[in-house]
Amino acid sequence: VRSVAIIGTGLIGGSFGLALRAAGFEGEIAGVSSPPALEAALRVGAIDRGATLSDAAATADLLFLAQPVRRIIETLAALNEHVHPDALVTDAGSTKQAIVNAAKEKLTRCRFLGGHPMAGSEKTGAGAADANLFRGRPWVVTPTTADDLRDPRAADLLGWLERFGAQVIALDAAAHDRAVAFSSHLPQLASSALAATLGAANPSASAPVFGPGLLDMTRLALSSFDLWNDIFITNRESIADAVGAYIARLTAVHQAISTSDQTALRSLFQSAQELASGLREPRK
Amino acid sequence: VRSVAIIGTGLIGGSFGLALRAAGFEGEIAGVSSPPALEAALRVGAIDRGATLSDAAATADLLFLAQPVRRIIETLAALNEHVHPDALVTDAGSTKQAIVNAAKEKLTRCRFLGGHPMAGSEKTGAGAADANLFRGRPWVVTPTTADDLRDPRAADLLGWLERFGAQVIALDAAAHDRAVAFSSHLPQLASSALAATLGAANPSASAPVFGPGLLDMTRLALSSFDLWNDIFITNRESIADAVGAYIARLTAVHQAISTSDQTALRSLFQSAQELASGLREPRK
Repeated sequence: VRSVAIIGTGLIGGSFGLALRAAGFEGEIAGVSSPPALEAALRVGAIDRGATLSDAAATADLLFLAQPVRRIIETLAALNEHVHPDALVTDAGSTKQAIVNAAKEKLTRCRFLGGHPMAGSEKTGAGAADANLFRGRPWVVTPTTADDLRDPRAADLLGWLERFGAQVIALDAAAHDRAVAFSSHLPQLASSALAATLGAANPSASAPVFGPGLLDMTRLALSSFDLWNDIFITNRESIADAVGAYIARLTAVHQAISTSDQTALRSLFQSAQELASGLREPRK
Repeated sequence: VRSVAIIGTGLIGGSFGLALRAAGFEGEIAGVSSPPALEAALRVGAIDRGATLSDAAATADLLFLAQPVRRIIETLAALNEHVHPDALVTDAGSTKQAIVNAAKEKLTRCRFLGGHPMAGSEKTGAGAADANLFRGRPWVVTPTTADDLRDPRAADLLGWLERFGAQVIALDAAAHDRAVAFSSHLPQLASSALAATLGAANPSASAPVFGPGLLDMTRLALSSFDLWNDIFITNRESIADAVGAYIARLTAVHQAISTSDQTALRSLFQSAQELASGLREPRK
């Protein structure tokens, strides 16, 4: 890779640029984004210059689309006439099936490899970008054929991701979407619904009465809806399944609390502890 | 206060001892607990000596009961024949109505002021005790009469709590229990139920696919059931109400996801952000 274009220079796009630089990338990094987003990315050193999509596509041999899901789908279509046939296009979209389908249909002139860095924060914008944002975090890639990972451009990309400290995991796009419905989209909705429940219930007199656990449980509730709307639209069925499973579990909890069923509650805590401890085991 | 007894020298009891020392308390601090808990509290300097309940009660003019709720209720009854009539007994129980009722009935020979420091961690034991655990956190006290806070012993206690950096809030015991059902007990069950849902749903292949938000949302799920059982038993009705309100909210979310109702989802995120931001505003 000699020349990179980052389309969408927010938190993820900006962190990608900073991580490339920190890992020793010496080629040019162009950014395509709104004027304020480009300014923020230039200020932190995540990109070298702002460009138009057609200009960036003409020169870059790696294009990283770090936009909301439906914007990525639009960009894939708009890119096709401009990209270099040797270029690799990859992305950071939070759902993958809709993007992989769109790439197959719309981006016919060069290779595409779907990606999803499982990193982020409640902060947004390149001002919060961090060269270490991806370190120790999964970065899912969604090849559609075995060739997709063997291609030299893809191998090059995976090399940089490993230098970022990311844990690269290859997964089918549909399997990715089902997994994140439970591990990412459900937790977001659980946090937002919890905060909304508290907001509706809490008389102002007792509003300050809470412990540190509530701050953990409402951190995701700070997220902006605009980042999530595309996810809900493009992963509707799996998310509905996950929320349904959560409601079923909570209905059993409600029953156990109401009847002081200590056996059921102890068993709930044991299953929960097991999963929560497993998440915290060091990754191989 | 010249002499303090801490009954139950775990994380909260141990932190109380360390906070007293850090705030300049020079009197004796005796501890009443199991032999390993006393050893841990002695090792970190949270207490000066281990004692039996009757011995500690005979000498202390402030007794701090930092045990699970139903153990506190037992201790209140056992203490009555041993306490000094000028002593003040206070506690750290997570629910207050059952404890205040028991104190009124069983602890007739000295004053009682219910308390609940809204601090803690998923760690347990005096080994994790911290002189700053209560700093910036609410410490609810539950007087039953106006006199309860005017009493010189109580005023003395409140002075120490303020030197700990805690935010003292006086609240009726029943109002406290309703508030924490939403702000503390519901978040615990939401976290445990989320972790259990993920544990049941996640095929092992996609197990490592999660972002940092899931670690926040499952931190409370690491908690031990033994600490929570008494809370569920002594605050059953309010917790069932809170879980019911959460299920109702999630059912609306499920409907909104299934029908791609963007207006409902945007409104959910806005209510949630408002509550979550409010929790993070600096306390007065």
